[in-house]
Amino acid sequence: MAESSRIYTAALVVIGDEILSGRTHDKNIAQVASWLQIHGIRLAEVRVVADDTAAIVEAVNTLRARNDYLFTTGGIGPTHDDITVDAISEALGVDVIVHPDARAILEKYYETRGGLTDARLRMARTPDGADLIPNRYTGAPGIRHGNVFIMAGVPSITAGMLDALSGQLEGGAPLLSETIGCWVGESDVADLLRDTEKAFETCQIGSYPFWREGRTGANFVIRSISAEDLAACTRALIKGLEAMDRPAVAGGI
Amino acid sequence: MAESSRIYTAALVVIGDEILSGRTHDKNIAQVASWLQIHGIRLAEVRVVADDTAAIVEAVNTLRARNDYLFTTGGIGPTHDDITVDAISEALGVDVIVHPDARAILEKYYETRGGLTDARLRMARTPDGADLIPNRYTGAPGIRHGNVFIMAGVPSITAGMLDALSGQLEGGAPLLSETIGCWVGESDVADLLRDTEKAFETCQIGSYPFWREGRTGANFVIRSISAEDLAACTRALIKGLEAMDRPAVAGGI
Repeated sequence: MAESSRIYTAALVVIGDEILSGRTHDKNIAQVASWLQIHGIRLAEVRVVADDTAAIVEAVNTLRARNDYLFTTGGIGPTHDDITVDAISEALGVDVIVHPDARAILEKYYETRGGLTDARLRMARTPDGADLIPNRYTGAPGIRHGNVFIMAGVPSITAGMLDALSGQLEGGAPLLSETIGCWVGESDVADLLRDTEKAFETCQIGSYPFWREGRTGANFVIRSISAEDLAACTRALIKGLEAMDRPAVAGGI
Repeated sequence: MAESSRIYTAALVVIGDEILSGRTHDKNIAQVASWLQIHGIRLAEVRVVADDTAAIVEAVNTLRARNDYLFTTGGIGPTHDDITVDAISEALGVDVIVHPDARAILEKYYETRGGLTDARLRMARTPDGADLIPNRYTGAPGIRHGNVFIMAGVPSITAGMLDALSGQLEGGAPLLSETIGCWVGESDVADLLRDTEKAFETCQIGSYPFWREGRTGANFVIRSISAEDLAACTRALIKGLEAMDRPAVAGGI
């Protein structure tokens, strides 16, 4: 085991009718997941909810209580369907205020862009007691309130906000992973996978089959917070595949 | 309003560590959402959970109780990390059985592929009382139990299972939509959007901003179950944009 066995977890609430209608393909789950992984925080659960106050309140209150961090994406723009700040303030039991720093940022940003209208000022509203997460692209900031992080829905803006948060959140030992691929049906190696995983207590092995060029293959992802166990488990799996005359491909196929 | 005002809803549980780690980008949310939309069923909520029995049980039991249909994707393969059938059986309070029809399908499929091993037989296991959803690609069927639909994680196989279910599920009037695009900042039309939506009771307007070629624009998606209201609301929005000297582009930009 690594020096610290404390596992940090996060949850993500993706807010938006456009994801639930199938119109927009979500890109934030994967990018938030990857960012968290680097910071030693495990993404434990994700919910996609509609632009609906009750649904947002339920998801936020359930998930912030049982995870170290809660992230949301979507619904913080200037239009009538952007209700995230109001809903999260209700979930937190605090008022919505116009954040003075956010107002100043937006005033400056819109100085040469037609001025700060009422609609644009909506983007300066935060739950009372919040800090801002910088947004280098469009002025309108993200919001942090305790362990809740409210971010944009547009993936490139979310990426900038995650970047601004890099190094700010306490995490545990990052979950390390190795991937190996093999031209083998996963059902032919089910016993090998189970037995190998059992032999290394800190490791999990995921099996991801594919069909390509008319052939059956699978990638195996071994995960552990212990670099030593990870290497040993990966070696054992490669050896087991070799014994079946199925050479493994490092890094996956 | 359309003749029937009954709204049918579905929820989706995406099961898999590989989505939560960021390794695999989910494609099933969008394809299930689109399929449901065509069938007049609204995707009300999505949860992504780990390969963890307690997490699956909680999500399945919460969501099947408050939606007409519950779909799951992932975790029905032959390996040790495929625990969906066991977890959902626990959620439903029924035993896991080897389904005779599923066994027969797999026996036939593997007849020329090395035979039905114990690992492969795992894919014939279902909650007691289930029906099968055909899988034309790899034999291993999906599973239907009451209002719960258990599907594969590999998107192409999921697509085949959805296809097999087409026309089988009762839905309501499909939610119709129109999209128009405009080279305008969404904050400049926030009032117009809100007022137009208010004027048409059955319509919702979503606003999706973008930045492209150094310019600001937005797509507006108008949704309604009434074709008449949808057309009238779309016309009103186009007229409002024209009055601001911002011509709309049909179908979006």
